[in-house]
Amino acid sequence: MSGILGAPLVHRLRVRYGECDPQGIVFNAHYLAYFDIAINELFRAALGAYRVMTDQDVDIVVAEVRVRFGAPARFDEQLDLEVGVTRLGTTGLSTAHRVLREGELIAEGELHHVFVELPALGKTPIPDWIREPLARYSV
Amino acid sequence: MSGILGAPLVHRLRVRYGECDPQGIVFNAHYLAYFDIAINELFRAALGAYRVMTDQDVDIVVAEVRVRFGAPARFDEQLDLEVGVTRLGTTGLSTAHRVLREGELIAEGELHHVFVELPALGKTPIPDWIREPLARYSV
Amino acid sequence: MSGILGAPLVHRLRVRYGECDPQGIVFNAHYLAYFDIAINELFRAALGAYRVMTDQDVDIVVAEVRVRFGAPARFDEQLDLEVGVTRLGTTGLSTAHRVLREGELIAEGELHHVFVELPALGKTPIPDWIREPLARYSV
Amino acid sequence: MSGILGAPLVHRLRVRYGECDPQGIVFNAHYLAYFDIAINELFRAALGAYRVMTDQDVDIVVAEVRVRFGAPARFDEQLDLEVGVTRLGTTGLSTAHRVLREGELIAEGELHHVFVELPALGKTPIPDWIREPLARYSV
Repeated sequence: MSGILGAPLVHRLRVRYGECDPQGIVFNAHYLAYFDIAINELFRAALGAYRVMTDQDVDIVVAEVRVRFGAPARFDEQLDLEVGVTRLGTTGLSTAHRVLREGELIAEGELHHVFVELPALGKTPIPDWIREPLARYSV
Repeated sequence: MSGILGAPLVHRLRVRYGECDPQGIVFNAHYLAYFDIAINELFRAALGAYRVMTDQDVDIVVAEVRVRFGAPARFDEQLDLEVGVTRLGTTGLSTAHRVLREGELIAEGELHHVFVELPALGKTPIPDWIREPLARYSV
Repeated sequence: MSGILGAPLVHRLRVRYGECDPQGIVFNAHYLAYFDIAINELFRAALGAYRVMTDQDVDIVVAEVRVRFGAPARFDEQLDLEVGVTRLGTTGLSTAHRVLREGELIAEGELHHVFVELPALGKTPIPDWIREPLARYSV
Repeated sequence: MSGILGAPLVHRLRVRYGECDPQGIVFNAHYLAYFDIAINELFRAALGAYRVMTDQDVDIVVAEVRVRFGAPARFDEQLDLEVGVTRLGTTGLSTAHRVLREGELIAEGELHHVFVELPALGKTPIPDWIREPLARYSV
């Protein structure tokens, strides 16, 4: 099990008790929180920290997300969050995500973000100083 | 503003402070929680309550979800959650969702659930006593 | 069952599936979210809306909270959130909270907030135009 | 800055974006989730894993919690969760908690848990095989 075409970035986390529901499995909404954590780690790897971007009044907002669920994950399990950049448009960033438990596919999905200016959240082109470091995490 | 082909079910909720992030808008993961609330209200409308189903050791798990985001929603705003059934397969239930604020589209999406037996969570055909009431909420 | 000395404000909500944990009961952290919802409804009753305060660059932050848990609450149950003002100091607001299910005590607690100026979050005296309406909800 | 009397257990985590609210700081309810994570790490240190306990149909539920907030914490900051056992009664476990950021006190609190039998959640004495390992983490 090798990840997204050799996923450029993997971040491990442990499932929290409060993230699991009465079925004993991670409640579906938390997978979007997991993807968001992976995105943050992607920006850390690319830029040093997410705030390097927001300090320049540039931020991202989610335009679309898709998740397909495989096996359920449970409390205290360790999950590997894989993320890679699949598209860098004029203003849009697309990423592919996988959530794995010891190599088993738990969930996978895609996120589409749009770059915006702070604080008004209006669409803005991706600055080159963000585009180039992100491009190194393409799949 | 007419909803999903005249949405068969609409549920209103108010955005909570803790659901909003430093951008001042509802954090994306909470939309899946909103969709889940709409699904619960769908089962209330169809069966009287969700537990009418789980008391018979039948439950549903999410197989896939897609969300497209329009305008951001903010703290204390009232949102209308629309939901309708788009497909009832052998074991699968598909629903379409919209989130509206005074008629403005905030988000829309689709959810695909699979019926399972409790407690093992193995796939099971949709019983007729669930299928027929759900079918009344088709769009 | 009469509430907190005839609780001046009661707000009803329904337990969400994602708020319940593998024990099948509401995860403890969500009670702080419930108290926060009650505080918001208190400000709605007193001022018309919470944003009437924040629009004037006045806000509140939590300084201390205490919760005692009685009976567990479960998915889809309706809970009554009671709240009353117990102290209005120079900069501090204390509130008492109870969570009831059909009159049965589920949890109770106290919250201590401090008034702050936005955006720096520095402590500020409670303005009279906020103090007087809040005082009407004293217990 | 030395922790709770030389805190017997410290666990580091990073603040997630979705845990921060429009004030730009961690929403208060998430501190209870942080304390819960510290409790889980305490059981890992004492017993190998939390499930070592629940596999024997023994679990804990929260009876009371208190939190005092110092400085606010923000997105992407690393926090150290300190926890120590302050009392092991017949059925009750009390723990003291501190949340630190580079030695600065962010929050502190106390949790009181009661041991229960699964699945009925009735109170049960703390078994010796749990009491003795936990006692090693006393402060």
